[in-house]
Order: sequence, then C-alpha cells, then structure tokens
Amino acid sequence: MAICYLCAMIFPSSLLENAVNEFSRLPGIGKKTALRLVLHLIKQEQGTVQQFSDTIARMRNEIRFCTRCHNIADSDLCNICSDRSRRRDTICVVENVRDVIAIEGTGQFNGTYHVLGGVVSPLDGVGPDQLPIPDLISRVKEDQAKEVIFALSPTIQGDTTIFYIQRQLEGLPVQITTIARGISFGGELEYADEMTLARSLAGRLPVGQYVGRK
Amino acid sequence: MAICYLCAMIFPSSLLENAVNEFSRLPGIGKKTALRLVLHLIKQEQGTVQQFSDTIARMRNEIRFCTRCHNIADSDLCNICSDRSRRRDTICVVENVRDVIAIEGTGQFNGTYHVLGGVVSPLDGVGPDQLPIPDLISRVKEDQAKEVIFALSPTIQGDTTIFYIQRQLEGLPVQITTIARGISFGGELEYADEMTLARSLAGRLPVGQYVGRK
Repeated sequence: MAICYLCAMIFPSSLLENAVNEFSRLPGIGKKTALRLVLHLIKQEQGTVQQFSDTIARMRNEIRFCTRCHNIADSDLCNICSDRSRRRDTICVVENVRDVIAIEGTGQFNGTYHVLGGVVSPLDGVGPDQLPIPDLISRVKEDQAKEVIFALSPTIQGDTTIFYIQRQLEGLPVQITTIARGISFGGELEYADEMTLARSLAGRLPVGQYVGRK
Repeated sequence: MAICYLCAMIFPSSLLENAVNEFSRLPGIGKKTALRLVLHLIKQEQGTVQQFSDTIARMRNEIRFCTRCHNIADSDLCNICSDRSRRRDTICVVENVRDVIAIEGTGQFNGTYHVLGGVVSPLDGVGPDQLPIPDLISRVKEDQAKEVIFALSPTIQGDTTIFYIQRQLEGLPVQITTIARGISFGGELEYADEMTLARSLAGRLPVGQYVGRK
C-alpha cells in the first residue's frame, strides 16, 4: 500500500493515487479536494472522462499565441486580431489573458489588445527585455495607432512598466492613457486607501459625464 | 467569438473555452477557477499536461472495484483485501472510499472493510436493495466474522442502515458494534449539540482506559 508522507493519505489503489497526485499539482487544489474530484470522475461514464482528458491534452498541444498581440489563439491570429470590425489603431496593453477576458466581458472596448505576459519586476527577475515591448512599438508604428491604453494593475511594477513603455513611445504621434483608478462601484469611501482616494479625486469628472460605448 | 451565456465570459480561443468548460463541470469548480487551472496548464510543458491527461483517462479506464469489499482496486481484490496480515473476521462497514482512506489514516484498524457506496435513504430513492448488503452477509458467514463495526455518519440514514443490516445479521454469532459518538478531540463541550452530548455521556469510559492498537 502506497503511503503519501506529505499528507499521510493511504490509497487503496495506485491508479487512484496517481490521479490524486496529478490533480493536487494544480494551483489551489489540495490532496482532499483532489480526492473529491477524482472520486467524482470515477462515478462518471468512461466516455465523459475520456472527453475531459482529451480536451485538456488537445488544448495544450494545439493552443497557440497570437503573433500580433500574444493573446491565446486557435491559429496564427487570435479571434480579436482577426476580427475586421475591431479597431487596430486603439491598443489596450494588459498583463495577461485573464485581463483580456475581463475587459471583453464589459463589452465596452472595440480596439485590440497587446498581452505582455507579465510586468517589469526586477525583484522577480523580469526585465523589460523579457516582455514583447518591441512588438508593441512596431504595431504602434505600422497600424498608425491613435491611442495606447494601459490597463495594468495599479502596483509599483505596473507603473514601472507604463513608465518604461511610455519612454519608448516618445516622439510617436500616439495618445497614451491609463484606465481610471478610483473607488470601485459599490465601494465605501471610508474604506478606500489614501492612494486610491487621492487618484480618484485627481481624476474627477463633471457630474453627468457618461463614459459610454466607443 | 464564443460567448458563454452562463457567466458572460468571452474566450479568445475555442480550445481554451472547451478546456474551461470541462474543468468547470467538476464539483466545486466555477468558471473563474477553471480558467485559472487551464491557464496554469498552458504554462506547463506539453509532456506534463499529457501525463496529467493520460493519468486521468487511464485511472477511469482501468480502475476496478474490489469483488470482496467494493473498495476501489487495481485488480480483482483491493490492496487491503489481498493483504494477508489484515483480519478477515473483523469487518468495518463504511459508506464510501473516502471513509476507508480516513480510517486507514488513523493506523488503528487491522481488519477489512465493506464499502456500501451509500446509505439507506428512501427520500433520495436509495433502498437497501441497491446496496451490497447480501455480499456483507455472505462474507460474515464465509469468513466466520467475529465483529462487524459500523463506521457510518451519525445521521438518520446512517442509523436506518445500521438497523436494517443488524436485523439481517440476527442469529449469526457475530458481535455488532458502532464507532463511538462523542465530543471531538479539541471540541468545546458547550458548543456540542444535545444528541452528541447525550451519546457521549451514555458511552462514558473509566478514566485512564486506552483504546489502543488492535
């Protein structure tokens, strides 16, 4: 009987144990959750589990990254870059694919994206050379971009990244903006930190101004 | 671009979307968690993801149930039933495989198990006929079992199941016991419910009595 010394879980079958180990390598999934997921799969039809397994393997083997914006894609270009109705002269710079999905969820953005895959963070060993910043500069020039919108997290690293890219774009006829920092919808003023409150105050808008669909 | 109407998540790739959908069918995994897991897998080596996928499929295709105790097994008999050092005359009746793993984790039980796969629960449409109770009776007779220990959850359904099986075992020379109900280790007396406290009082033991290894 195999014993896992990490959690002292004793498995009646090595097939079960291997499957639990595989699941528990995923982020945020511990041994007990992994066991629950595996026992759920055991109860499903063989075909259902085969489909689960095939879909995951196929996804990893066939997935590609958009050659223009570095978003996840099925082919050379992602769905957004290959959509002719999206404005190529408005480029929203984001850290990762999750941010693209979040912004797409608003239905308020009709431009294209540029996925950096990270932000400049010397402490984590990420310098600007490891990010696809030259690609962004080329896109701005080639597509004669009118606006580059930074939608990065409001952290020191995010601000450093914006500062670095901004200097690279100097001299080009492009407007550089960043998404507004402010009080969240439904957020309470008294619980906001000073930085957010200060930025929110500095970025005040005339009452009644509506930031609508582009 | 595919839109999931359930969560309004818009995916840049259908490979990504399918993988997220597969993960989010697992219990307790929502769309956002599924996306996090899939994006984690995208960052892994192809071989690592292939191994994950293969292990899950192989587990489902090859896993079997022990013909004696209905535990999960790699072959005809589970590791416990095929272990000659385990006492066949002491049978612990549990609801599911998770309970077997929990009891094995204590290292205090040297008998064998009988996994019911459920408890009698007329409201959920589970009658005694759907549980492998006849197998248990045969085992008690064949192995001349000395003790049947019920380790079922202290619910109405658990108690109904114990009552039903107990009647089936009537007349056989076997001792029928149930695990002690009482205050959990580290539990506070004042927060225990009356039922637990009453059973804990009724099942009191002389001070110093040690329930040790069998």
